[in-house]
Amino acid sequence: MASHRTKMARFAKLISYDEAVGRLLSVNWVQIPVESVPVLHSNGRVSASKIVSSVKVPNFDRSAVDGFAVAYSDVSGSDEFNPVLLKIAGEIEAGKFHKNTLANGYAYEIYTGGQMPRNADAVVMAEDAVRRGNEVEILKPVRKYENVSRSGEDLDVGQVIIGKGEVIKPQHLASMVAAGFDEIKVYKRINMGILSTGNEIMPKGGTIKNTTQPLLLNYFNSGYMETIDLGVVPDEVEKLHETLKSFRTKDLQILVITGGTSLGVKDIVPDVVQEYGSFVFGGVMIKPGRTISLYEVKGMPVFCISGLPVAALISLEAFLNEYLSNQIGLRKSRFIVRARMSERVANRDAMRSYLRVHLKNTELGLIAEPLRITGSGILSSLLKANGIVVIPENIEGIEEGDAVEVSVIGEVL
Amino acid sequence: MASHRTKMARFAKLISYDEAVGRLLSVNWVQIPVESVPVLHSNGRVSASKIVSSVKVPNFDRSAVDGFAVAYSDVSGSDEFNPVLLKIAGEIEAGKFHKNTLANGYAYEIYTGGQMPRNADAVVMAEDAVRRGNEVEILKPVRKYENVSRSGEDLDVGQVIIGKGEVIKPQHLASMVAAGFDEIKVYKRINMGILSTGNEIMPKGGTIKNTTQPLLLNYFNSGYMETIDLGVVPDEVEKLHETLKSFRTKDLQILVITGGTSLGVKDIVPDVVQEYGSFVFGGVMIKPGRTISLYEVKGMPVFCISGLPVAALISLEAFLNEYLSNQIGLRKSRFIVRARMSERVANRDAMRSYLRVHLKNTELGLIAEPLRITGSGILSSLLKANGIVVIPENIEGIEEGDAVEVSVIGEVL
Repeated sequence: MASHRTKMARFAKLISYDEAVGRLLSVNWVQIPVESVPVLHSNGRVSASKIVSSVKVPNFDRSAVDGFAVAYSDVSGSDEFNPVLLKIAGEIEAGKFHKNTLANGYAYEIYTGGQMPRNADAVVMAEDAVRRGNEVEILKPVRKYENVSRSGEDLDVGQVIIGKGEVIKPQHLASMVAAGFDEIKVYKRINMGILSTGNEIMPKGGTIKNTTQPLLLNYFNSGYMETIDLGVVPDEVEKLHETLKSFRTKDLQILVITGGTSLGVKDIVPDVVQEYGSFVFGGVMIKPGRTISLYEVKGMPVFCISGLPVAALISLEAFLNEYLSNQIGLRKSRFIVRARMSERVANRDAMRSYLRVHLKNTELGLIAEPLRITGSGILSSLLKANGIVVIPENIEGIEEGDAVEVSVIGEVL
Repeated sequence: MASHRTKMARFAKLISYDEAVGRLLSVNWVQIPVESVPVLHSNGRVSASKIVSSVKVPNFDRSAVDGFAVAYSDVSGSDEFNPVLLKIAGEIEAGKFHKNTLANGYAYEIYTGGQMPRNADAVVMAEDAVRRGNEVEILKPVRKYENVSRSGEDLDVGQVIIGKGEVIKPQHLASMVAAGFDEIKVYKRINMGILSTGNEIMPKGGTIKNTTQPLLLNYFNSGYMETIDLGVVPDEVEKLHETLKSFRTKDLQILVITGGTSLGVKDIVPDVVQEYGSFVFGGVMIKPGRTISLYEVKGMPVFCISGLPVAALISLEAFLNEYLSNQIGLRKSRFIVRARMSERVANRDAMRSYLRVHLKNTELGLIAEPLRITGSGILSSLLKANGIVVIPENIEGIEEGDAVEVSVIGEVL
């Protein structure tokens, strides 16, 4: 077992966040496979290509309401007391194509979604007309193309529906359906295993509840990533070896190990992991979570992170986002807003700090109040915070009233 | 089949949004049942009670780092050149309770999570100390309680972890684990069936793709609500009856029917649904989506909404939120931000309008640019919009520069 002094050497010099990211990006990670899925089942997945419409939607001019298809110039003078009288040339249902042409002085009765007859350029809503036998009184004028969904007005040929690396939302999915896509290419759902270590959190005999593992399992589970509970092992080298070997049969793309990453003699995780692959980085100037280290095991990233919940969450997310951006082009999906800091915040020790703040709407705009929290184990800080401000390592502090960019993580009321 | 004139009577007078909500709230809906679930599987569910911690977390003072537990006053003068030398009284692991007491001039080696010995009030980090046999050189002073997680500092007795009606997020879940909860009461997942109607969207022979159904199925599916695809029926009274009768065997809490809600002779939905239950309201001064109607069928809400995707989404959400707020106390979970409108927007016809906007971060703060969209079928407006501004019916317009509240529905970059 390594002594304190040699273990300290591992962190003797914390590296900068940028250097750590640079090392992460320099590794030749195993690529995340792409698969075809039905568009109808693609919600929450990450698009593996740019999806462009090759058709116009709608692909014909159609009525947006139930009413009467007219030439707008025919009904320009109409009102309730001087209705314009038009003859009804026929009825146009939705769902069927036709070749009708409108003649002067005529209207077609038309239903929502119905194809516009040639020469008609507006639809009078049913409420603004009174049908009398084969004629209709128009009570209100319409503007050109009023109540008409024009061909291509929703999607035009060449219009981008979603970019590569974007998370597919319901509106993307529906637009792909509209454009006639049945199947699309997405990245395979990434299996991220999460293993906890620590005598103190063992289900039997531990003195502390294991909150970090359920926090991470639920926080990172998404349409494009499946988190897998790999259980808890005590701080024993042999047990950890056994457990890691048992994962060979699992289809993991990312492995996360929490706890045992500090300098204590019980902190065995990095030393054990090192036996399976290569060291990428360890010890980063970020707060909280500086004990994070990264190993490459047969092309798979193995993140060893703090056992403390907030440090674990923040440090893992910071590097996971970089990994996913690099591997599948994932774009940041958080809401970023600008706010003013309510008070001075010092940033000591030249660390990149992830400050939890409470964002408030005020008459003067959005205000970010820093939460005064020591200790990266304070889970309840995540209940109170609705935003995160990143303070770079070269900034010694933020002054009261300074503008900051805030990642929104909860409701702003 | 009802004539135009009698059908028009249904909407002869659109009612206000507030009146429609009032009628919705006056119905004696069947209650959503409550069930117990393991905390570990409660993510995304709606809490059926206020959850309050009955313990302190942590329940003992513990070290937040690996290092040496000291009396802070013993090491106040230390620095690298004049380290304070302390004797090591022993080692304190995480995961075990003990009754150690610190004497003057002593330190305990301690690991993250380890219980603080009595009389110790700070921890010197391992990096700031050098162990030499049974002694340790302290290279840096510490403040009182530095690197100590104090008993109750995360959660105190009586502290609220989550309120009734709040959606359980990973941080709530983890805090409940920390406070020792194994099972909690949540509302049963609500089954919401979505049936589409319309000849034009029939899988065989339709002229238009059915985008509304996949949009709603994916948008409203969540941890607390399961959406169920009930297929598509043509605009035929008998077919609709058959289909509705077949749902008797399904466990639905909400039924949504899209299409066929306007005034056309093909718009059969409300008339058919009326035969199964009572009319609550129909025709509301909202834009888009004014054709929404609500029926009560054996205590179950049946929403009949537009077949056009944006109108369907906006009108259903507006009333579903009211229903859920009333039935399970669900709290709004959107991000609301204040922004300034980039240009004048008129609000004609005294309608409550749901304006899609593009929110932009600028030097002058958040700016909301209205998307100029006619027609509630323009799905791509949901690709471009990242916010919704509600303009109440009694407001004739919003002036350029006016402050508005925006519900954020996409990234703000």
